[in-house]
Amino acid sequence: MPPAPSQLAYIPFVSVENMMRLVHSFGIEKLLLELTNAVEADYRRWDLFEKTPRLASHSQEGVIELMPTSDGEAFSFKYVNGHPSNTAKGYQTVTAFGLLARVDTGYPLMLSEMTLLTALRTAATSAMAARYLAPKNSKVMAMIGNGAQAEFQALGMKAVVGIEEVRLYDVDPRATEKAAKNLRDSGLRVVACSTSQEAIQGAHIITTCTADKAYATILTDNMVGPGVHINAIGGDCPGKTELHKDILSRADTFVEFEPQTRIEGEIQQMDADYPVTEFWRVLSGDAEGRNDARQITLFDSVGFAIEDFSALRYIHAKLKGTDFFQQIDILADPDDPRDLYGMLQRAAA
Amino acid sequence: MPPAPSQLAYIPFVSVENMMRLVHSFGIEKLLLELTNAVEADYRRWDLFEKTPRLASHSQEGVIELMPTSDGEAFSFKYVNGHPSNTAKGYQTVTAFGLLARVDTGYPLMLSEMTLLTALRTAATSAMAARYLAPKNSKVMAMIGNGAQAEFQALGMKAVVGIEEVRLYDVDPRATEKAAKNLRDSGLRVVACSTSQEAIQGAHIITTCTADKAYATILTDNMVGPGVHINAIGGDCPGKTELHKDILSRADTFVEFEPQTRIEGEIQQMDADYPVTEFWRVLSGDAEGRNDARQITLFDSVGFAIEDFSALRYIHAKLKGTDFFQQIDILADPDDPRDLYGMLQRAAA
Repeated sequence: MPPAPSQLAYIPFVSVENMMRLVHSFGIEKLLLELTNAVEADYRRWDLFEKTPRLASHSQEGVIELMPTSDGEAFSFKYVNGHPSNTAKGYQTVTAFGLLARVDTGYPLMLSEMTLLTALRTAATSAMAARYLAPKNSKVMAMIGNGAQAEFQALGMKAVVGIEEVRLYDVDPRATEKAAKNLRDSGLRVVACSTSQEAIQGAHIITTCTADKAYATILTDNMVGPGVHINAIGGDCPGKTELHKDILSRADTFVEFEPQTRIEGEIQQMDADYPVTEFWRVLSGDAEGRNDARQITLFDSVGFAIEDFSALRYIHAKLKGTDFFQQIDILADPDDPRDLYGMLQRAAA
Repeated sequence: MPPAPSQLAYIPFVSVENMMRLVHSFGIEKLLLELTNAVEADYRRWDLFEKTPRLASHSQEGVIELMPTSDGEAFSFKYVNGHPSNTAKGYQTVTAFGLLARVDTGYPLMLSEMTLLTALRTAATSAMAARYLAPKNSKVMAMIGNGAQAEFQALGMKAVVGIEEVRLYDVDPRATEKAAKNLRDSGLRVVACSTSQEAIQGAHIITTCTADKAYATILTDNMVGPGVHINAIGGDCPGKTELHKDILSRADTFVEFEPQTRIEGEIQQMDADYPVTEFWRVLSGDAEGRNDARQITLFDSVGFAIEDFSALRYIHAKLKGTDFFQQIDILADPDDPRDLYGMLQRAAA
């Protein structure tokens, strides 16, 4: 056997199991709160980031996406798939992993699972927006769509916004049952509802997160009264929306990165001049968030690379002094950088 | 500890050490020949592939690139950096890793180191082009630039084209010394030269592979006589070229994917209407390769995603029945795909 590679050859890898250990060691609500603050801190330095719509490879069954960004010091990307027909085969709709790297050398700093981390950062991003857009003292959230994201969304809104009640609805009652059971000991009042109308009764925040890859109408116009915040996270690729366009006509809509959301978000139903506000402008003071108790605010969220960047940097910082990772030998490190072949040759000896 | 994840959670990971074991178990020349055939087979079905210029994140120090492609059944991407100043810090100029995934589910099939594999596929791609573009019975190759790629190039041309002599030159004599030593027992006649003029004497193939991130002139016009094939692989990003443009004026130039090469290749020096032939057209019979013994052919190679796809698929097929990989737990696999949170919750128990 060749001698063990040098430290330069290794990068820390956070497996699914280690990510779960890390989440439990900090506590999920504390982690969601810190992660929300991390995403918000990066949104506050929006201008520093290299921004590009994600690179998507579409097929009949779904989509595979690469989502890169960089702040000039660190680079990150996420690999993520979206395949609505997967659950029927026993696979997940969305799986993901990601990488953080140094810009100055191009060397990776960490490889991590991101199936769990995406659920966490999506909940953190929703919570960040709700912190500025939801009605003051929002206590009740309706959760339409009780799939893999549902519990994370509920806990994020609890930790960051202070909601006390979550009202669950899904076309599949087994999904609602699952979410209700999982949230049993969360400290939230959990109300399982049998219609979406019932779920949104008294809700200050309405989160929609369904998985159909199709134009769907989860919320119709007459269902939505004044003074709510809609957190729409399920409409996130071309041809996939959840809200009736009449709701959008009445709402003030906030987005992550406009060029991407025009393609992928709820606003793909609207004309190109439908006004939207990039959310970072609310943080920078360039734009108003909620300005009226009766206003309908809509966060048309499709997921953006900066959120993954924030999540990877947050996890990377958390690894220090822990054993929540393993080292993997993914980078060749010859003694002389130009002597790659010599390294190979010596390995045979 | 939670129960071990199911098989769906794992993907095979080929570390640098395992890639070296795999290469040695097959023998590098056999592997380079098979890999050349694999790349050529994919170039013959060019139309099936999703083609896009790579996604590059440039900085002062270098570039980080993501190179995705898909043939409709499999998807691959490579992460690769290029940082010419790295060697001075003891890091490599180029490191890489890549992923192969299924298009129908979006699930990864294999993660692999690609620092070594990129050197192998680059040599295979050069050999594929030389097979059709180099003069008949090419026996002598000049190798200008004796860095990390040099030995792989020499062995690829030996295995595929049948060269018998390699003439080495580098501005740094230590690099030439290193390459000469590494190729000592390769079966090639190795001639270390002290000028590039000396290196190209009698050469049928001239390979240029230097690493300066700058417009450089490795070959000037008066150095290149008729009847040679130039395999230019070092000019591969905006602002980085190796050949004097007068050589390009006299040569028939072949490229991988024209939109990418116009940005990154030697032809960035030429007007937009400078004629080039995409190499796959030679294989399909749509275009001529070498048609005259006195012709100067130029393969202006910058590296293209399909070559990485071929390499990853080739390695993936080779893994069967071997232990040249380890399983890593990168995909969350809840019992119920919608119950990601439940999986997390049960892991705490």
